[in-house]
Amino acid sequence: MVFSKFRPLDEKTLVEYIKSVPALSSKLANSFDDLSVKEVGDGNLNFVYIVSNSEGSFVIKQALPYVRCIGESWPMTKERAYFETLALKEEGRLSPAHVPEVYHFDRTMSLIAMRYLEPPHIILRKGLIAGIEYPLLAEHMADFMARTLFFTSLLFRSTTEHKRDVAEFCGNVELCRLTEQVVFSDPYKISEYNRWTTPYLDRDAEAVREDNLLKLEVAELKSLFIERAQALLHGDLHTGSVMVTRESTQVIDPEFAFYGPMGFDIGAFLGNLILAFFSQDGHADETNDRKAYKEWILKTIEDTWNLFHHKFTSLWDEHRNGAGEAYLPAIYNNPEVQLLVQKKYMTNLFHDSLGFGAAKMIRRIVGVAHVQDFESITDAAKRAACERRALELAKMLLKERRKFEGIAEIISAIRQY
Amino acid sequence: MVFSKFRPLDEKTLVEYIKSVPALSSKLANSFDDLSVKEVGDGNLNFVYIVSNSEGSFVIKQALPYVRCIGESWPMTKERAYFETLALKEEGRLSPAHVPEVYHFDRTMSLIAMRYLEPPHIILRKGLIAGIEYPLLAEHMADFMARTLFFTSLLFRSTTEHKRDVAEFCGNVELCRLTEQVVFSDPYKISEYNRWTTPYLDRDAEAVREDNLLKLEVAELKSLFIERAQALLHGDLHTGSVMVTRESTQVIDPEFAFYGPMGFDIGAFLGNLILAFFSQDGHADETNDRKAYKEWILKTIEDTWNLFHHKFTSLWDEHRNGAGEAYLPAIYNNPEVQLLVQKKYMTNLFHDSLGFGAAKMIRRIVGVAHVQDFESITDAAKRAACERRALELAKMLLKERRKFEGIAEIISAIRQY
Repeated sequence: MVFSKFRPLDEKTLVEYIKSVPALSSKLANSFDDLSVKEVGDGNLNFVYIVSNSEGSFVIKQALPYVRCIGESWPMTKERAYFETLALKEEGRLSPAHVPEVYHFDRTMSLIAMRYLEPPHIILRKGLIAGIEYPLLAEHMADFMARTLFFTSLLFRSTTEHKRDVAEFCGNVELCRLTEQVVFSDPYKISEYNRWTTPYLDRDAEAVREDNLLKLEVAELKSLFIERAQALLHGDLHTGSVMVTRESTQVIDPEFAFYGPMGFDIGAFLGNLILAFFSQDGHADETNDRKAYKEWILKTIEDTWNLFHHKFTSLWDEHRNGAGEAYLPAIYNNPEVQLLVQKKYMTNLFHDSLGFGAAKMIRRIVGVAHVQDFESITDAAKRAACERRALELAKMLLKERRKFEGIAEIISAIRQY
Repeated sequence: MVFSKFRPLDEKTLVEYIKSVPALSSKLANSFDDLSVKEVGDGNLNFVYIVSNSEGSFVIKQALPYVRCIGESWPMTKERAYFETLALKEEGRLSPAHVPEVYHFDRTMSLIAMRYLEPPHIILRKGLIAGIEYPLLAEHMADFMARTLFFTSLLFRSTTEHKRDVAEFCGNVELCRLTEQVVFSDPYKISEYNRWTTPYLDRDAEAVREDNLLKLEVAELKSLFIERAQALLHGDLHTGSVMVTRESTQVIDPEFAFYGPMGFDIGAFLGNLILAFFSQDGHADETNDRKAYKEWILKTIEDTWNLFHHKFTSLWDEHRNGAGEAYLPAIYNNPEVQLLVQKKYMTNLFHDSLGFGAAKMIRRIVGVAHVQDFESITDAAKRAACERRALELAKMLLKERRKFEGIAEIISAIRQY
């Protein structure tokens, strides 16, 4: 058998591979004459091919044993494809409308075949840069997060199921370590990988490294990230991990999945929307001042949290007599204590989300991996001005997050920067 | 082979077993004529035999597939012996002066052979009931806790080591579930297993079940217990898991070991000392009013925390340039931030310890498993009076723990109840 051990595929060998896997060749009606194979991976890590003919289509994603955007000098286990598949299947089970179906997984080849998200699906981040509104985005993302987080938490599950899955995802440690490094460590120290819009932000980057209170808070979040197995996280839920049309929202790329604090996913999504907001002034021109679009982003941030809060607590109410270990019905099933418990839980989750969201914003401005929202602003002075406002807001949020009581206060704070 | 599958041993078959295991028979110089075998298990779970002759001695502990103090109606995996052995070896490596050496482990038989802690070693709880002072107890326990907790935490270790061991100990889920039930759940609801000094404490037990704020706090601690893998815990560090002489302190029975919040171990030990304190009035008589002994217990509580604090932060200082993931030297190695970080960490740990300690106290008064400190007070009215003071203090500590800034304030609070 040609593929009995790992080898990186290219457009040509990929076709051989497909021919050898009935689950894939049947998607193409075993017809290879008009086959199109296109490498489209623009992420930081993997190779991604769109495979299609007149009969059908799918996407092939292959993990190579290093970080694509850095090269072979930064090794990274290709076992991440295994955890990505586990997560895609679990998230797909819990939120089928917002996760592409997995058709085939090959652990030896670190290869996943899944539904091709056909045009007009685009990466959400590109839509945000282009100024496109997605009226269902908040609703869909709130739904995805509420369902995947609630159903994998102790609000729904027994300790036995929880520890079994926590143990399994402990295996994805290399990807967790990558997050620890690039989100919680590198931005706060001198690192060869860090970069920022120089020379404009030189002092700002230095200020991050010298801010003791900031470092104190980010240490607490880092420990939470490593130690607190609250739910199955996507682990990288920024606006580049979501594909959208006006009607559809699809969450992809959960290779960083593990059991961690829920606020990390919620914060990743909200934090990246805030980055998109602050980048808009850099995209404004005579034909479009982006003012209305900025309002839409703010509304989406506010709606996402509010809808998440509503959906999550509704799931909790619905399943309060279930097997969830955290709040046994025999103890907590009276309206007064239920209210107290939910308020405390959701307030803590809100503060966690603000903290993690802020940390994700900071790392995108002074760390290794930047976002297209800012990178696509060609005028460096203008870009730096946008980035600085986002950075200042993020630093304040990280340090003061426990003072905020609701998302409306966050929207006000964003407007002030 | 006679013992190729699990069978519960008795005094007779135990000798056959020992003969078949060279590591054990050699401890007895292969001489079985003057052999003495004595079953001494007085714990809640297992069978324990002291085996000795003129040449040597050891203890054999066998886990049966149910909870000994309840019977076969409460099944409990015998795999706990495997985790107990893992923990004994790890704790023994980290704190050799305070953990008995393991001589032999047989996973099939769920059987551990270890050092026999010869007389005058007795269970600490019995010493506390007898009113015996142990001048080195605080020092030794502070040392054991500081070393086992520090060296298995992210202050010393990398995420890779951490997740590997967290995953392993996820397997000890049945014992974790037992703790969840008897510590964090049963005391707060009607349960067939609960008992208390009736009728004196009937209203007090009911008040625990109806105290919404208490239930709110205990839920938070339960979630921490399940979710937060901060360090390798002993998992059952009460005064019945410690054997002492004036010179020696030995920690035994870590079958509940898992990766959890450090405060659970510290709280277990301090909480059981506080129970011992409140039981003293029930043991006072004409010849001994126990006043001086109560002062010694208070001093031991204060010293244990203060010495733990000192030893733990000293280990941290000593290893601050090591591989610990939580506070990388490149970010945190300046005196000002180090001070801030340690203060915050130790304050959180103090509050966790108070919360878990209080929960452990409550469950010993209105839950399934009581403590000999109180049980040995034969006058029920007198016993109830002692228990009520401990219960009231514990409820206050659980709810107000974040208001306390140091152990001296706790000692004052204990004196007031």
